[in-house]
Amino acid sequence: MKLTVLAGGVGGARFLVGAREVLRPGFDPRNDTSVPEIGDHKITAIVNVGDDAWMHDLRLCPDLDSCMYTLGGGIDAERGWGRAHETWNLKAELAAYGAKPDWFGLGDRDAATHLIRSQMLRAGYRLSAITEALCTRWNPGVHLLPVSDDRCETYAVITDPEDASQRAIHFQEWWVRHRAQVETHSFVYIGAEEASPAPGVLEAISEADVILIAPSNPVVSIASILAIPGVRGALRTASAPIIGISPIIGGAPLRGMADTCLRVVGSQPTAQAVAEYYGARTDTGILDGWLIHPGDRAEVPGVTSRTTPILMSSTAATAAIVSEALEVAGVRP
Amino acid sequence: MKLTVLAGGVGGARFLVGAREVLRPGFDPRNDTSVPEIGDHKITAIVNVGDDAWMHDLRLCPDLDSCMYTLGGGIDAERGWGRAHETWNLKAELAAYGAKPDWFGLGDRDAATHLIRSQMLRAGYRLSAITEALCTRWNPGVHLLPVSDDRCETYAVITDPEDASQRAIHFQEWWVRHRAQVETHSFVYIGAEEASPAPGVLEAISEADVILIAPSNPVVSIASILAIPGVRGALRTASAPIIGISPIIGGAPLRGMADTCLRVVGSQPTAQAVAEYYGARTDTGILDGWLIHPGDRAEVPGVTSRTTPILMSSTAATAAIVSEALEVAGVRP
Repeated sequence: MKLTVLAGGVGGARFLVGAREVLRPGFDPRNDTSVPEIGDHKITAIVNVGDDAWMHDLRLCPDLDSCMYTLGGGIDAERGWGRAHETWNLKAELAAYGAKPDWFGLGDRDAATHLIRSQMLRAGYRLSAITEALCTRWNPGVHLLPVSDDRCETYAVITDPEDASQRAIHFQEWWVRHRAQVETHSFVYIGAEEASPAPGVLEAISEADVILIAPSNPVVSIASILAIPGVRGALRTASAPIIGISPIIGGAPLRGMADTCLRVVGSQPTAQAVAEYYGARTDTGILDGWLIHPGDRAEVPGVTSRTTPILMSSTAATAAIVSEALEVAGVRP
Repeated sequence: MKLTVLAGGVGGARFLVGAREVLRPGFDPRNDTSVPEIGDHKITAIVNVGDDAWMHDLRLCPDLDSCMYTLGGGIDAERGWGRAHETWNLKAELAAYGAKPDWFGLGDRDAATHLIRSQMLRAGYRLSAITEALCTRWNPGVHLLPVSDDRCETYAVITDPEDASQRAIHFQEWWVRHRAQVETHSFVYIGAEEASPAPGVLEAISEADVILIAPSNPVVSIASILAIPGVRGALRTASAPIIGISPIIGGAPLRGMADTCLRVVGSQPTAQAVAEYYGARTDTGILDGWLIHPGDRAEVPGVTSRTTPILMSSTAATAAIVSEALEVAGVRP
């Protein structure tokens, strides 16, 4: 089976662990080396790059790295991002030099990934090829594809709290530095219009047996994927069923600041509103099915809703969500 | 008084601490901010850049950093290079990715210096300006000047132990990876012929009241400085007396592999041979005076030799060496 997942960072990464568990129970990145083919199954993750940023001449790809570290067993599971057993001396020293930005969590171990990636980018390699190279170490068991090799970054248009001017700041600054606690008017996917899907992205959609939309932030993880020209069209015409998993639990996102993001785009943090935000394929959207949490409601014409616990509290729980999604799609591994 | 010192890494750095102690006793980089002017005195160090290298897209300047960290109180005094309280996670992770070279001591704290420098170099800043920027943090109390802003790196021509072929390897590879334990035919200062002295270098020589040559490696720290067009000529015509401090103690260099380097260039690890290697200004060389260790001998026509303990065992001991050198020069702070 060919399973393709649209994914952001933390939520996407955990969801992919569940998908891998369904298609290859007990996969261990330290022992299994049959990557990216898993038996007869292949999982491809199309990963958001809107969070990516240059900082201190290092190219950071937070979502790709969250997926890679989580699937590869290198994540700090408690923090949810970055490397386990991390130290922060590089960051402290940069701050001691007065180098900006100083609000970003740049770990010493994590920096090695950024350094290799930056060096390869400057040498002319494409991000997708670099990601593949990095994954030879991490053996994620999932083919991790940046949605685009081109630079396209999400910016938030805010009213600057200091001088009341309106300006656009990088999503990372909005998210990490301001914790989304600033008057925000819109998100713009800068560079997206001129970007192309990375090699393999459109094929992963058109050749999939089933396509899942991970319970990631709909606005800054999924819509930023859809902003790459060609991706939405490929989803619209894909022969595979497309099942989304709601990122809302009981009228609020479990983590992150999806509620703020949704309100900025005129939506609401409800399973219903997010389903409408994605839309039905029978209409002008991308959904055929929609998994929601018990107690939430979503009724969108053309979209098959199914209620199931969607708390990714463990690999087994996440695998159960994926299995349920496959069942809604009418496919079996 | 204007004191100018030609300096390499570890030995040069310690020597500069002694020079600073003579001209401003008790200077503390954490409290004193009158940099680079020290009262009526100014110390300028013209620092070797032959050890500099790009590794993992980071520009390493080992000698400049040794001087900066030592004078600024950030050095690992026991190891003699790199930062105190260092951790090595970045290096370990680079190795885990299989990134080469993996033999270089790249510390997490140290990497911040390299990262800022590399970023500024790529943005078009000159190394001398970058060094000045980095020094605003370290407050070394000495004006640290790279001898050149141009890329000029020392290579060793070796017989490769694996395939017996002759090839040139970067000095760092020769020094750190091979520990100089490889058949070596010559050193070449690649890029030096086309390089120019950094702004201020020739002025620091021509306007000096006294010029000292630190007890650094004569071949790969000092000769590599002299290889920059214009520097030797400026020394030859400088009005200031030039006093060298022998790096030899009892017929052997105290540290480093100066003996190997000297033999490669057809010299010997003796105070006499090094003095001849530098030569007298009255002849075709650069020396007016020469400090040697008790028990060593050096008789070179035109060069005033003086015997004094030249073991840099403490700041006070090093300051005594500098004072002795100033006395040979006939100047007083």
